[in-house]
Amino acid sequence: MRILTAGESHGECICAVLEGFPKGVKLSEDFINEELKRRMSGVGRGRRMAIEEDKVEIISGLRNKVTLGSPIAMLVKNRDRKIFSQKKDNLASLSVPRPSHADLAGAFKYQESDVRNILERSSARETVARVCAGAVCKQFLNNFNIRIASFTVSVAKASSTRKPKDTAEIRSKTKSSKLNCIDREAERTMIAQIRKAECDKDSLGGIVEVWIEGLIPGVGSFMHFDKRLDARIAYYLMSIPAIKGVENGLGFEYAKRKGTSTHDAIFYTPGRGVYRKTNNCGGIEGGMSNGEVIIFRAAMKPIATLRKPLDSVNLTSGKAEKAIVERSDTSAIAACGVIAESMAAIAVQELFLDKFGQDTLGEIKANYQSYLKTVKQKLKRRK
Amino acid sequence: MRILTAGESHGECICAVLEGFPKGVKLSEDFINEELKRRMSGVGRGRRMAIEEDKVEIISGLRNKVTLGSPIAMLVKNRDRKIFSQKKDNLASLSVPRPSHADLAGAFKYQESDVRNILERSSARETVARVCAGAVCKQFLNNFNIRIASFTVSVAKASSTRKPKDTAEIRSKTKSSKLNCIDREAERTMIAQIRKAECDKDSLGGIVEVWIEGLIPGVGSFMHFDKRLDARIAYYLMSIPAIKGVENGLGFEYAKRKGTSTHDAIFYTPGRGVYRKTNNCGGIEGGMSNGEVIIFRAAMKPIATLRKPLDSVNLTSGKAEKAIVERSDTSAIAACGVIAESMAAIAVQELFLDKFGQDTLGEIKANYQSYLKTVKQKLKRRK
Amino acid sequence: MRILTAGESHGECICAVLEGFPKGVKLSEDFINEELKRRMSGVGRGRRMAIEEDKVEIISGLRNKVTLGSPIAMLVKNRDRKIFSQKKDNLASLSVPRPSHADLAGAFKYQESDVRNILERSSARETVARVCAGAVCKQFLNNFNIRIASFTVSVAKASSTRKPKDTAEIRSKTKSSKLNCIDREAERTMIAQIRKAECDKDSLGGIVEVWIEGLIPGVGSFMHFDKRLDARIAYYLMSIPAIKGVENGLGFEYAKRKGTSTHDAIFYTPGRGVYRKTNNCGGIEGGMSNGEVIIFRAAMKPIATLRKPLDSVNLTSGKAEKAIVERSDTSAIAACGVIAESMAAIAVQELFLDKFGQDTLGEIKANYQSYLKTVKQKLKRRK
Amino acid sequence: MRILTAGESHGECICAVLEGFPKGVKLSEDFINEELKRRMSGVGRGRRMAIEEDKVEIISGLRNKVTLGSPIAMLVKNRDRKIFSQKKDNLASLSVPRPSHADLAGAFKYQESDVRNILERSSARETVARVCAGAVCKQFLNNFNIRIASFTVSVAKASSTRKPKDTAEIRSKTKSSKLNCIDREAERTMIAQIRKAECDKDSLGGIVEVWIEGLIPGVGSFMHFDKRLDARIAYYLMSIPAIKGVENGLGFEYAKRKGTSTHDAIFYTPGRGVYRKTNNCGGIEGGMSNGEVIIFRAAMKPIATLRKPLDSVNLTSGKAEKAIVERSDTSAIAACGVIAESMAAIAVQELFLDKFGQDTLGEIKANYQSYLKTVKQKLKRRK
Repeated sequence: MRILTAGESHGECICAVLEGFPKGVKLSEDFINEELKRRMSGVGRGRRMAIEEDKVEIISGLRNKVTLGSPIAMLVKNRDRKIFSQKKDNLASLSVPRPSHADLAGAFKYQESDVRNILERSSARETVARVCAGAVCKQFLNNFNIRIASFTVSVAKASSTRKPKDTAEIRSKTKSSKLNCIDREAERTMIAQIRKAECDKDSLGGIVEVWIEGLIPGVGSFMHFDKRLDARIAYYLMSIPAIKGVENGLGFEYAKRKGTSTHDAIFYTPGRGVYRKTNNCGGIEGGMSNGEVIIFRAAMKPIATLRKPLDSVNLTSGKAEKAIVERSDTSAIAACGVIAESMAAIAVQELFLDKFGQDTLGEIKANYQSYLKTVKQKLKRRK
Repeated sequence: MRILTAGESHGECICAVLEGFPKGVKLSEDFINEELKRRMSGVGRGRRMAIEEDKVEIISGLRNKVTLGSPIAMLVKNRDRKIFSQKKDNLASLSVPRPSHADLAGAFKYQESDVRNILERSSARETVARVCAGAVCKQFLNNFNIRIASFTVSVAKASSTRKPKDTAEIRSKTKSSKLNCIDREAERTMIAQIRKAECDKDSLGGIVEVWIEGLIPGVGSFMHFDKRLDARIAYYLMSIPAIKGVENGLGFEYAKRKGTSTHDAIFYTPGRGVYRKTNNCGGIEGGMSNGEVIIFRAAMKPIATLRKPLDSVNLTSGKAEKAIVERSDTSAIAACGVIAESMAAIAVQELFLDKFGQDTLGEIKANYQSYLKTVKQKLKRRK
Repeated sequence: MRILTAGESHGECICAVLEGFPKGVKLSEDFINEELKRRMSGVGRGRRMAIEEDKVEIISGLRNKVTLGSPIAMLVKNRDRKIFSQKKDNLASLSVPRPSHADLAGAFKYQESDVRNILERSSARETVARVCAGAVCKQFLNNFNIRIASFTVSVAKASSTRKPKDTAEIRSKTKSSKLNCIDREAERTMIAQIRKAECDKDSLGGIVEVWIEGLIPGVGSFMHFDKRLDARIAYYLMSIPAIKGVENGLGFEYAKRKGTSTHDAIFYTPGRGVYRKTNNCGGIEGGMSNGEVIIFRAAMKPIATLRKPLDSVNLTSGKAEKAIVERSDTSAIAACGVIAESMAAIAVQELFLDKFGQDTLGEIKANYQSYLKTVKQKLKRRK
Repeated sequence: MRILTAGESHGECICAVLEGFPKGVKLSEDFINEELKRRMSGVGRGRRMAIEEDKVEIISGLRNKVTLGSPIAMLVKNRDRKIFSQKKDNLASLSVPRPSHADLAGAFKYQESDVRNILERSSARETVARVCAGAVCKQFLNNFNIRIASFTVSVAKASSTRKPKDTAEIRSKTKSSKLNCIDREAERTMIAQIRKAECDKDSLGGIVEVWIEGLIPGVGSFMHFDKRLDARIAYYLMSIPAIKGVENGLGFEYAKRKGTSTHDAIFYTPGRGVYRKTNNCGGIEGGMSNGEVIIFRAAMKPIATLRKPLDSVNLTSGKAEKAIVERSDTSAIAACGVIAESMAAIAVQELFLDKFGQDTLGEIKANYQSYLKTVKQKLKRRK
């Protein structure tokens, strides 16, 4: 499966193309739109979220709502277009790069003095395409009972220690949350922090946790370094703008602990098969799914655009100036969870298709069942 | 640039092939061997490290020690071979998977009951190939004054808060360290922890920090998610066996902080050009190098093989048994640093070649100089 | 550079996305539309060509007609849409596969009994996306004076032996041709053959020749088999529906000749530098451009859809039936030339960017000039 | 599956690494060595063929002759080594490029004046690695009764019109041939041509035909241009040094014919299922295998190195000189067949694994059988 995204923040639209997506998968546009809506929601969002109401248009790859096996192209129109894109615009040049953005490094890379030519593509608006792609992958994975959910673990210093039981609980609890949170009490403190930061014209980051439930053991591979499931998920999570850290299972906590108290011992009963009493490794051993829930956490830095702007320099005049102030969010932690789910879904589907083939859902299901039987036989042999 | 590694832990040899490596780069075998030696060193290593004395043999891609532009193939013979590999062996079947290893998930994936067929490739011995590849990339990067170094930040609960000035300091201080450490005091505590764990037949993990110094701004890209430098480095670091977490710059700490106090403001003086007073972002903004030192941290879980083995199950009999006890390290944190440097070097070179072409060192240098001039002009224009 | 195409023959639209296309390239939509028009033209086309009037819409990657370095997404609406695509359609099932099409093999591959689900994507309508992509690449290559043109060599038994001097001659002569031909006399016979076949409800193929002029020596590589310029061009030409043969330079004629009379001897004069008196190799030696004109020929089989349909079988009933008769062309040889040019342009640009970098046109030009100087020095040294 | 080859003509050895090759495939080294022997054989070979006796050494990926799923690395030592490779050599500089070789274009590309640095890798000796890789793929494909064979169709003006019945006939007839020929009479004329050319210090090319028998319908895809089976095979065949033309089925002959007389009508009987009476398309329709024998022809130019050397120029002095005379073959057409089979095997296996998964032979067989059942059901339904 190959994915390309296209589109600028204030251009015509955002676009995603998925090539190599199997035939025979029923896709719901409504589901994609709900995911897009989740991406726009959450306390702490700025004005644009009010302007936007993203609707996907699937322009290829489907017949009667079922995939054909051909590339799936999706468009989401930008409602907030400043007559950008291919027509001639007369937008003023932006020459003061914002710290923590792509602005300055991009200006060097592309020999650019108008930072607008950088920020149009580096904008997090591009994640709309990822959410579309992820929403399509989730619907594929759903056929194998693979469920992906996320929740906010912390915002600034407000954090939750509550652990959910499963993705069903995550979904039901986050559904009514304004911050993709499963912990009402912690949520209140988080919201308070965001309100405070809003007043201060400051911005905040946070931590999200992603769960992937129901993945059969043996997806991913230790045979070559770039095929490891943990590495692939880390790659895609780290590619989300503002994500600066990623961990699987105990993650950084592992570094402080001992082997005897962290490794997940293996147990077996004929009724239950092989199982673990712990899941410190977060569902991945040797670069493969091990059958337990896969758990990742990603750390987001505070939103880069500040309404109380930082020191910067005018690239044309060389004079010290305050950075451009663009409309901005105070916190996008709720959106971050949705995007992280999307990127996880893409990573998982890639390696899932590597194992089970890629042509039609029916065929993949047959291959999956046939493999599942060998997995179960391995258990049954032991009695 | 493409890299493939091959080889089993007790097979003939470990092999790395680099395709797309530029012509005209002088390569020192001695340097590769030193890196291999660094990989074997450190307090806490097991018996195999005494057996092994890895020497690279470069079998293609060179003439008179200078690269030809053709694929570079490297071999490192395994001294500890158990007549494995293509000849018929009579090794007893291993049927009790070790928790935290690839053993169980691999047994499912490959419908395998002899776990030896899994662990031979999933073994960290494979990282020998990565160190060879990384050592070759480091020598290329050296032509552009890009320097990569690492140090141990923590082992279990013993950690160092000392921050080095630059890679020169890291190298000079770690050279005389038994644990790739820049902090003698912390090192003593770390070693004490390892000795204690050795006595307890336990194992430990830790945190390493990797510095990449001298990289010009504009390497990596925000134009597509899989071209981001931070994502690529995270991908490759996370692909190292036992690594469970990766962070760039402030990393997870970012999640707790505010935008105004973390984003690295931009300053300028005609003499110095653009500069920062802080480097919280760890040298990467918008998925590109920004000219500051690139800093990553990776968290390693405790060594998976334990001499006080964990509960497991015999895959043939279904009976509960203790996991196989293979010869093992107590801590491999010093090696981890070397491997992390290697993977970082590969990631950086890939994206560096994307920007500057890939045919000959002379040509790449000319392209680099020509780009450097545009970077400097951007600064000069501002006066 | 990565390219994905999407879209079904009677879906919403055809789509192409180019990722990794350099910044700073001025693009003309008009030029793309002219190329699309060329693709629709030529004697022997069926009814659809009258219906269609393809217009490209560039929805991303541009600002004020200049590329931003971000992915370029292009759409061409299908005017002949049968309410296909994501809405519910009630089109009758097509169950008699057409020989020489993807229909039958596709029905097997995708476990499909309605052949419409195959032919919508396997249709040559998809080449609209390739022509868009190719037209964009041609505009990039134009900055380096690389010119690509094609002409029809034969239609059925009518063939031309006229050899053009250069691409300028090809363009000027084919411009006024109804069959992309440079030889008026041969053209008349070709057209006569097509008219005759039309009466007979038969179809014809032919041979096209593609010229790539102005490519600097050293693009492509012998260092790995998949980087050879000849192989890459053959790959992309052979991927055009209906193309069944590809040759470079003398091609199959080489097999009949002797080395002494075919290899292109090397000559030198201080004024002219290195040159050849012959170009039997068609501009490629050792998988690289050698500085001479690159010449490929591609053989097209007769159009697969026949108005006098062939024997086939109903996939539902198992009964022998005549194949479906869809509206069709008698000959599409003129279109074939345009598509072949497009695929050649894509192949050349891919390997060109590998050599010269890919970020901005300015940077690539500087790198190109710097390389050109070494090429010229090599000549100058010899005096 | 990914393949990298490495090695110079007079370096230590030639190397091939296959990554992503399935577990559980029994591999015979003897078979690989036989293929290597076939590559060295044939009337018209030069002195080196007498020196060489290539033996493969599989250094990873196997246990007890069965693949582990890990990368397979293979080495073939060069017996004719001129103390090249990583040690210091004192070989005289070669500065007169040979026409029709990579020499001149390579000298430009790599800013090189010693042509030896080009020809060591561009040498056809590299195809040793391809034959090793191909021999391994053939053994995999053999598990699915996919058989690949080749024969010489023509040498210069001597050609055979004999058509074999199947690959069994090809193999049995070519086994005793000195020229990989299935036609004793034509062979005699071919050999006579070669002997004559030897006397004349000239060289010859020819045409080989490759048959792939037993491939199930539906391998390859029309969903994206780079996934077409015909395109992939053409890519890999054209990447063989000296190959200048490739055609599938009727190939260039198609261009002269009419649709009604060339397209392969579809027939069906309950006993036989779907079948064709003709195979003009050479087993591929819509970029997929259609169940018939896949037939490709490749045209080889005369050997580039001539003992009666062509005009060239000394790159150092600028003086006209005759090209370097290296030891050489007069014809390598028999070897060409073996290499073409190898490249075809690699192409087929790549797309075969895309359809059926890639982890273990057992799993792939189960997936294959499950797909085969759907193929047969499609037939059975029709009665």
